[in-house]
Amino acid sequence: MALPAKETFSEWFHELIQAAEILDIRYPVKGLYVWLPFGFKLRQLVYGKLREIMDRDHNEVYFPALIPETELGKESEHIKGFEGEVYWITHGGLDPLDVKLALRPTSETAMYPMFKLWIRTHADLPLRVYQIVNVFRYETKHTRPLIRLREITSFKEAHTAHRNQKEAEEQVEKAIGYYKEFYDFIAIPYFVIHRPDWDKFPGAVYTIAFDTIMPDGRSLQIGTVHNLGENFARTFDIKYEGFDGNHYYVHQTCYGISERCIAALIAIHGDDLGLVLPFDVAPIQIVLIPVLYKDKEKEVLDFCKEVVERIKRFRYVLDLGEERPGAKYYKWELKGVPIRFEIGPKEAENRNIVVSFRDERKKFSVPLEEISEERIRSWGEEMRNRLRNRAVEFIKGKLKFARSLSEIEEYAKSSVVLLYLCKEKSCGEQVENRGGKLLGWLKELPNFLNFEMEGECIVCGGKGTLAVASRSY
Amino acid sequence: MALPAKETFSEWFHELIQAAEILDIRYPVKGLYVWLPFGFKLRQLVYGKLREIMDRDHNEVYFPALIPETELGKESEHIKGFEGEVYWITHGGLDPLDVKLALRPTSETAMYPMFKLWIRTHADLPLRVYQIVNVFRYETKHTRPLIRLREITSFKEAHTAHRNQKEAEEQVEKAIGYYKEFYDFIAIPYFVIHRPDWDKFPGAVYTIAFDTIMPDGRSLQIGTVHNLGENFARTFDIKYEGFDGNHYYVHQTCYGISERCIAALIAIHGDDLGLVLPFDVAPIQIVLIPVLYKDKEKEVLDFCKEVVERIKRFRYVLDLGEERPGAKYYKWELKGVPIRFEIGPKEAENRNIVVSFRDERKKFSVPLEEISEERIRSWGEEMRNRLRNRAVEFIKGKLKFARSLSEIEEYAKSSVVLLYLCKEKSCGEQVENRGGKLLGWLKELPNFLNFEMEGECIVCGGKGTLAVASRSY
Repeated sequence: MALPAKETFSEWFHELIQAAEILDIRYPVKGLYVWLPFGFKLRQLVYGKLREIMDRDHNEVYFPALIPETELGKESEHIKGFEGEVYWITHGGLDPLDVKLALRPTSETAMYPMFKLWIRTHADLPLRVYQIVNVFRYETKHTRPLIRLREITSFKEAHTAHRNQKEAEEQVEKAIGYYKEFYDFIAIPYFVIHRPDWDKFPGAVYTIAFDTIMPDGRSLQIGTVHNLGENFARTFDIKYEGFDGNHYYVHQTCYGISERCIAALIAIHGDDLGLVLPFDVAPIQIVLIPVLYKDKEKEVLDFCKEVVERIKRFRYVLDLGEERPGAKYYKWELKGVPIRFEIGPKEAENRNIVVSFRDERKKFSVPLEEISEERIRSWGEEMRNRLRNRAVEFIKGKLKFARSLSEIEEYAKSSVVLLYLCKEKSCGEQVENRGGKLLGWLKELPNFLNFEMEGECIVCGGKGTLAVASRSY
Repeated sequence: MALPAKETFSEWFHELIQAAEILDIRYPVKGLYVWLPFGFKLRQLVYGKLREIMDRDHNEVYFPALIPETELGKESEHIKGFEGEVYWITHGGLDPLDVKLALRPTSETAMYPMFKLWIRTHADLPLRVYQIVNVFRYETKHTRPLIRLREITSFKEAHTAHRNQKEAEEQVEKAIGYYKEFYDFIAIPYFVIHRPDWDKFPGAVYTIAFDTIMPDGRSLQIGTVHNLGENFARTFDIKYEGFDGNHYYVHQTCYGISERCIAALIAIHGDDLGLVLPFDVAPIQIVLIPVLYKDKEKEVLDFCKEVVERIKRFRYVLDLGEERPGAKYYKWELKGVPIRFEIGPKEAENRNIVVSFRDERKKFSVPLEEISEERIRSWGEEMRNRLRNRAVEFIKGKLKFARSLSEIEEYAKSSVVLLYLCKEKSCGEQVENRGGKLLGWLKELPNFLNFEMEGECIVCGGKGTLAVASRSY
């Protein structure tokens, strides 16, 4: 069965994650999905990179999934932000529980009572931990695989504590750097956006978000970095003894990425034929397809073995199935395999290989001796660059700059809208009334955009900064 | 603060997992604990081996943590077995849910409705998947870190489907083989025991368990393998089309290991000084302790660098801290570091290293040139053998053979009791009345025991098989 065209994004995405065996979406509870083996491998590879980045200066830990109501409710802004979407456990076996337990929607209130016990003096700071866990949200909106879930199965959340606001701010900058590295690695362009104060994380001082643009022109939040200031430290009484012997509240940050990173990866790189995966995270990096003719089978298969010898350090498949080559091409294109080798009698005789890349699909011949680990890695690197450039072009095509409120209204129907806006809430509200959601102000100009960061506020004409509004997931 | 002696097992275990920074046990909900960075690394290494074994012929997947009441209740024996210990989610936000959701206590009822969709013909079989997930039990008994938990954070559960009973039984044998390999790898001796029919997994045809013996003489179940026959297939209507065009129910197995494997690792190998970890799973495999004297510091540190060059492929620490060497020895012994290198001015001058092993603690000198990856690996291997032998000796010391019911009663107070027993329930009950729990009948004789497998039933004098009774966790 052919995929719907990518132009019909919602159907295409829905079909592709099933056809490519990322998820089974038939689990009998709304908003919950099953990770299939192929999808799970992709998840492991993508999260492997995230772990590698985090492991440089964070410790991995695991906190319980259940949070007593008494802790969850302590920080008043935080509970206000989450109370509408928390799953509550009220019974153990046949007995009602004395204290209701929340299934963690995020782990601040599970972690910070322990931080209070862990932090004694300045020598205990900075504290930096992360975990990759399942978190739960009772979503009442339309749920979507990988995008809007009731069980987020793969929430990477990092939490840090510092001596003062300056060090917390430095950590915010570092976290932004980690996430840039991660999204550059999977070739996803992003905007780094300072969220409006009325849209920050409940309990935070401010929130910086990573947003990207989906093929239908809606924005997708794919990461957040929060400066929590002393808010949670005051609630959970987390203090340290300074050099001067006095006690001070710690300053905290937290930052998270969920499996939306995989939604972006699939949606932005994929095409009408299926997945297009960057080389480093592809569960299968190279597929060898022997083209067998009678009387030449042995030569072709022997030559395939020589080729395998040269690529065995990669994740490869030698497809010896019964299907015709065309059916095999189709199958592995759907799965996004970055590099395809075709090997028929002519190749075996000339000792070369017909190579094609998933994103380009033009074919070229390479002599066997030139197939080396280094060569293949450089193909992978080139492909990442092509994917990133293609994604940037796509995203630029989905951006429009608005000079008036009526232009916002017009453009926001199919695009993400850039505009200049001041920080007054009343001006922001005027934008939100016209064009979906105000994502906020660009913290920095993406390297693919050529704009001034400052300009006249589209509403009041005062001093404005480049801002983004869009319909969003 | 010194650890309690291992003889006082319960206190020793409780203190050790905190002192060695495995878990923080102060989380404010009974039966829930926090994995600390060092403990988490140990867990990753141990589960890495389990993953490696599973990955050979299983696919890793992830199923949702929430199971609707309607599915959980379908298999009548299964729900009877679990209904007393299931956590129920009754509310999402402020709204009561239409259908209550169970937090998975195990995943049969999450997976098998999907198996029905996945399995069409004999070509889809065997199906073998596994996942490593958090599962939840509302334990009303005394909870203990790693042993009796309300959130089992690290449940490795595998589930398989086969064409017939013979193939399911072959899978049971394979699963026993996987678990033997795993426990041999971490040097934990075990008994493979056929559980009594009245103590099998709810919904299974029969259960084979792995049990070991804890230092206090109580047995600990550290793995189970269940033959589910057609029980769940009939409940969830999982059929396949055979070669003959007819439809048949699949035959299923499932098998699991939880973080009790880490409880066994800590409890059985540890000693009065702390953890004793097998080389392959130690978060830190080698610690280098420079012994610094004035005027000789440079020579010692330069020599340390040369040593590091030779061990850099292992997980090592060069401890340059300010403490005295004795304090460092103590600290790294507590953490179970298998190999210690001491390097002072004499060693730097003679270009050799003082080596000692965590389990032996005698010291010997090795010339620098002999420090190779191969040599270190062989030390690790020898240590695994020593640990296993020591564990076997310990376990043999905790075993007693009973010739009468009154001997069972006497021995079971401090030991695990071997006896001959027939399969009559009435005979089994007589044993349970005397000596804690009847674990069941040995499926095979452990290679460290020299016993006949058959003998006269201790109760009725009929044909008996070697059985095990004990107090158990």
